[in-house]
Amino acid sequence: MIIALASDHAGVGLKDQLRDWLREAGNEVLDLGTNGIESVDYPRFGKLLGETIAAGKATRGIAVCGSGIGISIAVNRNPACRCALVNEPLSAALAREHNDANVLALGARLTGIDLAKACVTAFLDTPFAGGRHAARVDLLSAPTGD
Amino acid sequence: MIIALASDHAGVGLKDQLRDWLREAGNEVLDLGTNGIESVDYPRFGKLLGETIAAGKATRGIAVCGSGIGISIAVNRNPACRCALVNEPLSAALAREHNDANVLALGARLTGIDLAKACVTAFLDTPFAGGRHAARVDLLSAPTGD
Repeated sequence: MIIALASDHAGVGLKDQLRDWLREAGNEVLDLGTNGIESVDYPRFGKLLGETIAAGKATRGIAVCGSGIGISIAVNRNPACRCALVNEPLSAALAREHNDANVLALGARLTGIDLAKACVTAFLDTPFAGGRHAARVDLLSAPTGD
Repeated sequence: MIIALASDHAGVGLKDQLRDWLREAGNEVLDLGTNGIESVDYPRFGKLLGETIAAGKATRGIAVCGSGIGISIAVNRNPACRCALVNEPLSAALAREHNDANVLALGARLTGIDLAKACVTAFLDTPFAGGRHAARVDLLSAPTGD
């Protein structure tokens, strides 16, 4: 499993901390930037993460901006992505169980590092439940949603 | 301002409570369903809400499912929507200030009625800040994201 991370300038601190923590735990991590505190546009980094998932260059993604809201919208523009904005681990687990989420969005100005790590752990460790949820997940990626 | 509401069966209780509360406060509300506890697919109701916003039949939307995650993904497939999944009012206010969010997503199994009402109040009452945020919001709805 390759995990891609992307953030804007507001999220770069949390993104870098998660990247280092994931690497130290032996995960293969792709850091898509941003790399520094210079102001950048979260839609561009959300789009890049979406394209990375869609191309199969990573199987999971983590997206960070100040609130997590803007970059979660940007990632979900890509029908290959199911991005869940969370601020606690139960939602991260439900996103996997019910929605087969492949991207987690976090708000660096709202969620502290230890809670963010607990969200990421739930996101990485929880399997998709399948069953009745599978047809709904398929609908999320259907071109017309029908 | 017309406010459209949509939910799946897991969200219908909270959706109906918010609908009645919004109507009692004098708001014009469009209830897109579901109407009952029979199992339905959240992507279909998210898609319907997205199309309602895109067609200008409502200017704001509220989307509810069990966790809020699935329906928020479905709504954000529509480039006319900027859907923010929240569970507290600060995020709802930031979604308006920074992202000009036009749809709020809530998780009925995670967020209680009074906290949900506080989120909706922040969502309805907070203006978009514009300025540096405007170009980023435009990027969220650009066909290619460039």
